[in-house]
Amino acid sequence: MTSQDSTSADLAPAADQAQASDVAQATADVPVVEFRTEPSEYRHWRLDVDGPVATLTMDVDEAGGLVPGYELKLNSYDLGVDIELYDAVQRLRFEHPEVRAVVMTSGKEKIFCAGANIRMLAASPHPWKVNFCKFTNETRNGIEDATAHSGQTWLAAVNGTASGGGYELALACEHIMLIDDRSSVVSLPELPLLGVLPGTGGLTRVTDKRHVRRDVADYFSTRAEGIGGKKAVAWRLVDEAVPRARWQEAVAERAAELAGRSARPAGANGIELTPLQKSRTGEEICYRYVTARLDRDRGVAEITVSGPDADPPGDVAALHDQGAAFWTLAVTRELDDLILDLRTNELELGTWLLRTRGDASRVLAHDRLLLSHRDDWLASEIVHYLKRTLKRLDVTSRSLIALIEPGSCFAGSLLELALAADRSFQLFGVFEDVDPSAEPATVTIGEMNLGPLPMGNGLTRLQTRFYGDEAGLAAVDKRAGEALEAQDAQQLGLVTFAPDDIDWDEEVRIAVEERASFSPDALTGLEANYRFAGPETLETKVFGRLTAWQNWIFYRPNASGPDGALRRYGTGRRADFDRKRV
Amino acid sequence: MTSQDSTSADLAPAADQAQASDVAQATADVPVVEFRTEPSEYRHWRLDVDGPVATLTMDVDEAGGLVPGYELKLNSYDLGVDIELYDAVQRLRFEHPEVRAVVMTSGKEKIFCAGANIRMLAASPHPWKVNFCKFTNETRNGIEDATAHSGQTWLAAVNGTASGGGYELALACEHIMLIDDRSSVVSLPELPLLGVLPGTGGLTRVTDKRHVRRDVADYFSTRAEGIGGKKAVAWRLVDEAVPRARWQEAVAERAAELAGRSARPAGANGIELTPLQKSRTGEEICYRYVTARLDRDRGVAEITVSGPDADPPGDVAALHDQGAAFWTLAVTRELDDLILDLRTNELELGTWLLRTRGDASRVLAHDRLLLSHRDDWLASEIVHYLKRTLKRLDVTSRSLIALIEPGSCFAGSLLELALAADRSFQLFGVFEDVDPSAEPATVTIGEMNLGPLPMGNGLTRLQTRFYGDEAGLAAVDKRAGEALEAQDAQQLGLVTFAPDDIDWDEEVRIAVEERASFSPDALTGLEANYRFAGPETLETKVFGRLTAWQNWIFYRPNASGPDGALRRYGTGRRADFDRKRV
Repeated sequence: MTSQDSTSADLAPAADQAQASDVAQATADVPVVEFRTEPSEYRHWRLDVDGPVATLTMDVDEAGGLVPGYELKLNSYDLGVDIELYDAVQRLRFEHPEVRAVVMTSGKEKIFCAGANIRMLAASPHPWKVNFCKFTNETRNGIEDATAHSGQTWLAAVNGTASGGGYELALACEHIMLIDDRSSVVSLPELPLLGVLPGTGGLTRVTDKRHVRRDVADYFSTRAEGIGGKKAVAWRLVDEAVPRARWQEAVAERAAELAGRSARPAGANGIELTPLQKSRTGEEICYRYVTARLDRDRGVAEITVSGPDADPPGDVAALHDQGAAFWTLAVTRELDDLILDLRTNELELGTWLLRTRGDASRVLAHDRLLLSHRDDWLASEIVHYLKRTLKRLDVTSRSLIALIEPGSCFAGSLLELALAADRSFQLFGVFEDVDPSAEPATVTIGEMNLGPLPMGNGLTRLQTRFYGDEAGLAAVDKRAGEALEAQDAQQLGLVTFAPDDIDWDEEVRIAVEERASFSPDALTGLEANYRFAGPETLETKVFGRLTAWQNWIFYRPNASGPDGALRRYGTGRRADFDRKRV
Repeated sequence: MTSQDSTSADLAPAADQAQASDVAQATADVPVVEFRTEPSEYRHWRLDVDGPVATLTMDVDEAGGLVPGYELKLNSYDLGVDIELYDAVQRLRFEHPEVRAVVMTSGKEKIFCAGANIRMLAASPHPWKVNFCKFTNETRNGIEDATAHSGQTWLAAVNGTASGGGYELALACEHIMLIDDRSSVVSLPELPLLGVLPGTGGLTRVTDKRHVRRDVADYFSTRAEGIGGKKAVAWRLVDEAVPRARWQEAVAERAAELAGRSARPAGANGIELTPLQKSRTGEEICYRYVTARLDRDRGVAEITVSGPDADPPGDVAALHDQGAAFWTLAVTRELDDLILDLRTNELELGTWLLRTRGDASRVLAHDRLLLSHRDDWLASEIVHYLKRTLKRLDVTSRSLIALIEPGSCFAGSLLELALAADRSFQLFGVFEDVDPSAEPATVTIGEMNLGPLPMGNGLTRLQTRFYGDEAGLAAVDKRAGEALEAQDAQQLGLVTFAPDDIDWDEEVRIAVEERASFSPDALTGLEANYRFAGPETLETKVFGRLTAWQNWIFYRPNASGPDGALRRYGTGRRADFDRKRV
């Protein structure tokens, strides 16, 4: 978010009240936002792959806003632009294993990216702003994850001014090159211009990733004008400043160098992320393995995840042949899309009930195939993708309740759903009047629960659950591989409650109704705190500390009120602040 | 904050709008809040010392509210109650070195403490609520600090129900005993009853200190009724549940046991925390070593801290003789009181300018005396008190700018003021037209900067400043003991700017004016993030993550709006929530 408008000559002089509410209305009436896309449909980015180096060029279509009411000037972005970026990050990892460095650059003259579109932000309802920031944060974390775990190192080739969210995009890259042309700068002008904070991790990354000194960072973030050239290098804001004459050559050199460090295998063939099959009505969202029933009366989404309906292929070559059809990848893509869909489109479904259905041994067999081939790039990518998708669940502002019933398959990778939940119910015994001869529900700890799928805090969900209780964790670890029935699972602390047939309906109903009766805001705060016991990392600091401050600031009249900085921006009138420090 | 009203028979049926605004008005018109007190003035607590065990009994005077408009029923508290608690914590450390265990208990029947008073909270302006929570958090951290560093272990003898902030008080203690009488419970009913979060670290301490499992914690925090007896022990909410018949005996036993673990010296004599001399007008607050000029036009408090005007006493016995008059202790008490006064009473003074005046070598000599006697209880207490007071500065929502001028003494302990600041200016050369023959300003790193005064994140201010820059930190450490002039200090990264005589006034003026022109909310968020680079601890999680969420929740209409849960509480009408999840 930044100065795209102030530097734009043809800008309407005032974002008057009427215009602002038009946009607000528009976002309220916006049709369901769809996250599925593919490169041929991109309006804002170009993805060019040239052997080991890919170039992702941001060239935002001004008229391509997701919602009517604003123009995406100066490579500013909205959710639609970021959906394409996310798609590109994903495709690079799965479809282009040959790529070892990704250059992110701009297709515009003199401007790299002006950050999130201010008109869009100023006019958006509070939940839209917050959800938008969450998704953009996740995408930037995904860029860092690709650098750290995929041997695809991202390089920001900042060939013009990068302000606000534009600079934050660069901050997500491993290496930042800034063109040294006496006009291009990097900046975080949110505070001086808009009265808010940078929304996508800028403050945390400046100090904790790039190690900019805190007083320098303070000064930098209060200077709307930004910093360029050698000073930007000296202050650690960028890694190098390169004159225009040497720019192309220098970027190519650096990209080649970064690509050279990658441990990606030679000659690997990508798999195609085929279009995700999905049907959506007002009552239901259905994919191949995942369905969600939308119960608006109760404010509930009932999500059911199906396990694999066949054994996994016998070897890793066959896994490659299955590609996007391989169960773990397929189900992860579906879950990912569902989480994004529900978060964006279904704000009043405050509780998600998580069920599974299928054969636990097949889930565990799929897990084993993946984990016994972590050196295979595709197996590795699938596990990291599952990890990222589960992290998305961790930062989802919905109450998560796992229901573990007969016929379910909460084992290994799918057990993580129950461990991500705020609470869980496992049926003791069976439903006598449904199927008295059914096998009782079980949960099984697998290898996937013991390391490969860490949360943002760096711990596994089991480690977080038993934070500070070494004995409890050890007792649970010892039972890995066993199908644990309700009583055992509850005693071990793997599930919260284990009601029997007689109490089940009533207990679950009360839990769901209670949840719906509480303040949604307080629930969001409670969950955001309890889900992250123990240590903090850059990632949890962004989602916890920084996001919470930003939410508060966004909501205060000093930013979003009619006389607030965000609403007054571009009108020529200064914000009228309540000067009391809180 | 909790159910004091719902269980109170003589409660007026509805907190109607009129009443609420009366209180709001009252807090707006409240006279300057004074933090100085002493046990003979307590209205709400009794402090009894019996050899190695002190008992602090909470017996809140219903009619003793700091502000008119509410009654402090059921041992609920407001800022005035907490000011006395803070005073008691301090006096125990300085005046009662013989005390090795502190029992906190209640003087009421069946109720330990009902938490923060809800009427007060519901009617208080937003800044008051937030500032109140900050101070109460600091006091609870002080209780933990006494347990960790003073050999004064706090024991919560919960002899009745402890709800909300009442349970959070117990959580600050090292050991929690709950009376097992079938009616006394501990609870965090804020979310179900009030639509807010526990305000004094409850969520963080439940998981990160007491290691309650996150799903159990979730359930506990959504149950207004609370948990008692053996279940409270099994869930780790308390350490023991003791039948009424054995209560007195068991508490005494446990207190004696905790006291027995203390390494406090035998036969030590306390020093008296003599009344702090202070004068206060609308323009100035003056103590012996600290003054603050209140410049309301510029929104600035100009704070000047004077160094010692004599050499320190020759040995630790003489330090004891000086007692509260010993410079470091005196100046720390003054700073502490000033920070609290300005934070509470002067919300519109958004920038604090920090100056020092005096002889740097005397500051360093006082530091040395203290640090060469860390095994002396009093020397140790003084250093820990200075540490806590500097931490108070770190979480103060004001812009801090250090001005390092000729005649100043930013050395060792006082250099921490500059290192705590968001930015600092050190004059290069001297003020030619003031005193051309003056010595140029210097800063000196002393032993105090290298470990004894950690921030809440567990790092020193220097380590935080150079977080991730090992070389920079090493370069600075090497210069310890040198009086560094502006150019050196800036090159080393110890100060932000080093303007000369010609630029000084202009640069400082612009910095101050700019700060006053920005959104106060955004500045608070920026500072709260940049001041805590690097790792997080329980303490920083409470002030960063949890406080920010709570601020947001407090501010949302779902809590504080006319139909919000906080305002509707006790009226018999349910809150009317906006059900959208954000």
